[in-house]
Amino acid sequence: MRVWSFGARPTRIWWRAMSERARIGLLGRGTVGGAFHDLISSSSDHVVAVSGRSPEISGVLRRAEGDFDEILAASDIIVELIGGTDPARDYVIRALEAGKHVVTANKQLIAQHGEELFAAARANGVQIRFEAAVAGVVPAIRVIQESLAATEITKVFGIVNGTTNFILTEMARTGASFAEALALAQELGYAEADPTDDVGGGDAAAKMAILARLAFHTPVRLDDVSFEGITEIRADDMAYAKELGLSLKLLGVAEMVEGGVSVRVFPCFLYPGHPLAPVEGPFNAVMVEAPAITEITMSGPGAGGLATATAVLGDVVSILAGDAPVHETRRELPIVSDVASSFYLHLEVADRPGVLAAVADVLGQAGVSVKSMVQRGTAEQARLVMILHETPERAFYGALAELAKLDFMRGDPRAIRVIEEQFV
Amino acid sequence: MRVWSFGARPTRIWWRAMSERARIGLLGRGTVGGAFHDLISSSSDHVVAVSGRSPEISGVLRRAEGDFDEILAASDIIVELIGGTDPARDYVIRALEAGKHVVTANKQLIAQHGEELFAAARANGVQIRFEAAVAGVVPAIRVIQESLAATEITKVFGIVNGTTNFILTEMARTGASFAEALALAQELGYAEADPTDDVGGGDAAAKMAILARLAFHTPVRLDDVSFEGITEIRADDMAYAKELGLSLKLLGVAEMVEGGVSVRVFPCFLYPGHPLAPVEGPFNAVMVEAPAITEITMSGPGAGGLATATAVLGDVVSILAGDAPVHETRRELPIVSDVASSFYLHLEVADRPGVLAAVADVLGQAGVSVKSMVQRGTAEQARLVMILHETPERAFYGALAELAKLDFMRGDPRAIRVIEEQFV
Repeated sequence: MRVWSFGARPTRIWWRAMSERARIGLLGRGTVGGAFHDLISSSSDHVVAVSGRSPEISGVLRRAEGDFDEILAASDIIVELIGGTDPARDYVIRALEAGKHVVTANKQLIAQHGEELFAAARANGVQIRFEAAVAGVVPAIRVIQESLAATEITKVFGIVNGTTNFILTEMARTGASFAEALALAQELGYAEADPTDDVGGGDAAAKMAILARLAFHTPVRLDDVSFEGITEIRADDMAYAKELGLSLKLLGVAEMVEGGVSVRVFPCFLYPGHPLAPVEGPFNAVMVEAPAITEITMSGPGAGGLATATAVLGDVVSILAGDAPVHETRRELPIVSDVASSFYLHLEVADRPGVLAAVADVLGQAGVSVKSMVQRGTAEQARLVMILHETPERAFYGALAELAKLDFMRGDPRAIRVIEEQFV
Repeated sequence: MRVWSFGARPTRIWWRAMSERARIGLLGRGTVGGAFHDLISSSSDHVVAVSGRSPEISGVLRRAEGDFDEILAASDIIVELIGGTDPARDYVIRALEAGKHVVTANKQLIAQHGEELFAAARANGVQIRFEAAVAGVVPAIRVIQESLAATEITKVFGIVNGTTNFILTEMARTGASFAEALALAQELGYAEADPTDDVGGGDAAAKMAILARLAFHTPVRLDDVSFEGITEIRADDMAYAKELGLSLKLLGVAEMVEGGVSVRVFPCFLYPGHPLAPVEGPFNAVMVEAPAITEITMSGPGAGGLATATAVLGDVVSILAGDAPVHETRRELPIVSDVASSFYLHLEVADRPGVLAAVADVLGQAGVSVKSMVQRGTAEQARLVMILHETPERAFYGALAELAKLDFMRGDPRAIRVIEEQFV
């Protein structure tokens, strides 16, 4: 086992030339499994560039198809995307005992059987990785276990369930009831037909048990996590909250407290300045607090087949690449200097007829159009402040130089870029 | 070299028992170097738990003290915290060629000489890590190089200079001029006596060159980055922006565009919904966009001796730990169930005299005090909505049970937690 892992870089470069195979046994082929299968094909070149090994799916176990033992024998890494604990636990234990690395996205498996699996991995000198089990592609596991491996973490908390965050965002945005927002979430595929595990808080509890275990290096069982869901939240609570400027989130909180550790999941109002307040829709976010670093906040999509599969691939690549990034140049791309931007434009002009028309003419000739404008007059002098639509920068700066020459300008025109796009 | 790195777990456990030394040669002992030196002492147990190796400083090179060759010979890892490119480049090259791993926080070194250093690391089978060179403890480098190693990244952008973000935040908050806000930043230690590199955009440009290089796997020289600073931003631009609901940030943007790559640094207005809009003061934030994941946003302190030293330590531990987290239980902490929280409390009551007094009495007896309250009457029925100060949850829930028994209640009392603390 791990024959590729004696690890020094020259050996890896040799592998790259040879493109030795990395055989991946895939358990489960649902939404995430299917996306992962596709990703292995489409990302093959990237994986070779990073790890020197060419990934291939050596077998797929579906409910009614495939033999686990055969797949195990033919694989270097087992990727477990079945979900649930039975038979996933059995498969993963057998894989670890056979000296195969394991990557899984299975939160229940890790939350309920983590200690046993970690011990099996250590005993057999192999890795088990599970970034996708908590908060999708938000790199919470890697940051806690690697960036902050030697740092005393005091608190890990955040929004670790996308379904409930979508529902709460909808309730706040539209005034919908819980039932209405849940129905919409189901229609859009953000909630399952039986949403109990998500809306009741159980899903978030399993994820918080995992985060607490890793952050505090102490066993945390699922039973240790107290949790409440969002089923009791009413539209009029949301209305009052809006009046008070608060937003409501389902938070998972794991923290060191006097006497030990507290791990809980509960709906919670946040004041506007809170870093988690702007996290909306199906997004997840995790904050890590440690005295040495104040805090790190990470956010991103909490679910979705491709996003989750990407997190799984990140773990697979970490196993294949061994101990460090290789920093190899893969290509030489040209540097492009003229890109499109939108701008804020501030002009100080003499307040006389024809000024606006002249300005508009210069902008129009350069293909720059105005999105919004404020004009302020102060006796002899006026200010024109505009937000402009996106335009190639070279054309815009040409127009700016033209504007500067106009005889009614009372100061240099000032331009500052604006990001126009709206986010989730 | 790398004798500890044949890597299987049982060997590592043996090391743990033996606590083999990891000898760290420290170049530079300024703010970050001093903090790192202290951290190696205070985090020693953590490092042993993760890596099985006991870290020790084998030598310190100061301006007027220490011999580089002696330190090199006595070290397994060189931590370069001198800054600048000369003599840092020479030292790092010599360390890599001697088969020593290198960790550095030096953005200029990596931006200007990255290709040469990466090649030297590959040729000698050692690692060079530099998380702290960009955005402090924000784990941008690790996420781009490890989590997303095989993912096609299309854009990396963010706030990578804390000095300018502090200045812009102050200008927006107080209406101060650039000069006034800069003076305050200098007074508080957020800006250097010669602030040119920060406020002119050069510092951010070096960091964006590094991020672009890693995200797009193409060489990006410092000259390839076009940059503007914030010295021309005026108080009245900020005032207009406030009116328009915009916030101003110094953004670094590296993106794949038609024909190649664009890497730029410029001040930019953001609409309120933008994930970077709430990043204030000396904080940094980096967003990574890729079609497979939509986007990941990461934020945290961008500077500070201890925070930067913690990022350096994360890199050191990654080198020592080899290829994966060990997931070992280090302790068994009790689970604490009663913690303090503040609450939103919603009561539907009969609208008659004495009601508020009775409610206040129940709360008061449980030690719960009221922070703010809204009362709404609708003929026979009234609603009391309160935000309560932090109190132990068990006491609060006891009071809630008492309230439910009062004869004027027209529905079950509803309580939802509130996060009271204010953030940066």
